[in-house]
Amino acid sequence: MVRALLTIQYLGTRYAGWQSQANAVGIQQIIEAALTRLCSEPVSIEAAGRTDSGVHAAGQRAHADIPLRISEHGLRLGVNDLLPHDIRIVDARFVRDDFHARFAAKKKTYAYRIWSGDVADVFAWPTHAWVRGELDASAMRDAAAALVGKHDFRAFTVASPEVSSTVRTIESVSVEQDDERITITTTADGFLRFMVRRIAGSLIEVGRGKLPAGAILDSLEPTFALARWTAPSRGLTMLRVEYDEDFGSAQR
Amino acid sequence: MVRALLTIQYLGTRYAGWQSQANAVGIQQIIEAALTRLCSEPVSIEAAGRTDSGVHAAGQRAHADIPLRISEHGLRLGVNDLLPHDIRIVDARFVRDDFHARFAAKKKTYAYRIWSGDVADVFAWPTHAWVRGELDASAMRDAAAALVGKHDFRAFTVASPEVSSTVRTIESVSVEQDDERITITTTADGFLRFMVRRIAGSLIEVGRGKLPAGAILDSLEPTFALARWTAPSRGLTMLRVEYDEDFGSAQR
Repeated sequence: MVRALLTIQYLGTRYAGWQSQANAVGIQQIIEAALTRLCSEPVSIEAAGRTDSGVHAAGQRAHADIPLRISEHGLRLGVNDLLPHDIRIVDARFVRDDFHARFAAKKKTYAYRIWSGDVADVFAWPTHAWVRGELDASAMRDAAAALVGKHDFRAFTVASPEVSSTVRTIESVSVEQDDERITITTTADGFLRFMVRRIAGSLIEVGRGKLPAGAILDSLEPTFALARWTAPSRGLTMLRVEYDEDFGSAQR
Repeated sequence: MVRALLTIQYLGTRYAGWQSQANAVGIQQIIEAALTRLCSEPVSIEAAGRTDSGVHAAGQRAHADIPLRISEHGLRLGVNDLLPHDIRIVDARFVRDDFHARFAAKKKTYAYRIWSGDVADVFAWPTHAWVRGELDASAMRDAAAALVGKHDFRAFTVASPEVSSTVRTIESVSVEQDDERITITTTADGFLRFMVRRIAGSLIEVGRGKLPAGAILDSLEPTFALARWTAPSRGLTMLRVEYDEDFGSAQR
């Protein structure tokens, strides 16, 4: 038995999210089924963070205990052979038995992608939200700057009994524009449910000139009503998860 | 009644190709259904070129006679409203009554996209063929150069009673590399069925070192056995169709 840390890519379009739901299959279940078939006995995996329905990943990470004598390379190839084309193991490496993909995670980075052309682009659609017409990226950048640091992000999530604190520390938020494409990239020590999509939703309102940039600051006040703008899940991609130790950088 | 020239984008993944087949729906049928609903009477469209199952388009063109008093802008918005997100009208403009999208086409350009990473990329998958491992782009470029000019491309197609001549003139073929991505872009006065995918398939064999670059030249000899390497349809995108007159350049 050896513990493996997997770096995983997926296009979330067809799935219920990381976890299975009543009438839709989750990415976790598909990978567990592949591992179970490869190892001929039940194998479960634990992700660094659960992603919602429709959300993608370029560098999700998860650990699993592999009851098989196999190389890291063989494990990656063997599992990929059993996975559909919208889920890929891009890296597999063996780690200490007590390593935990979620508890050991120090930083996560998410990208939120927007297509702002006059016509929705069929190639951008699966991974971008469509906001018709020009967005003021400079105003979005100014508003985003207010989010950096340690804040109570309760306005950007939903109440959950599992979450004891809604305080998180955002290390950086960048807003990059490339013609019709705008990408919001956020790195933090952790994210609350819907947090990136609600930040993106609010920044889009700022970019459209419908919300003053200062409203982002107001929303960090504990008395502020919940942020109402939740951008669609298909624009969100989990880019990477970082640990204290260097487990390589196979994710893109 | 006014004739409209439509510039169309589609992600071909879900479709039988431009034309419907016995048990799968075609892109043409979806657009005709939207036009028919918009106009409240049957409207048919004629494409510049039929694309096969799974092939995409960034700038397909088609003409249709619109029995409605509507602006170009209103036509585009009205049809898009009734189309699924993987088919978009990016431009609509009114043309002469005798304009024919297929007969008037002077040049077409296709891109064939390849992902050559060690692991198939989930984001590239829908629009790229996957060839594991490095390809020699320089050898592919040399081989591609031999195809430029007027040649009999019978080795790159299948016999068809509808096609009187297999001679076509290729204006240019470029092979561009950007890390794991290789794009083969071909412009010609017309293309035979499977021609771009068979050219791409042969060039991939050259890139893998399995076929000498000179074999591409040999295949242009009328006595040559059919080229056997047909690259998968999902890597192919019809980029643009050009006419003598300037009908704008709304396609990307």
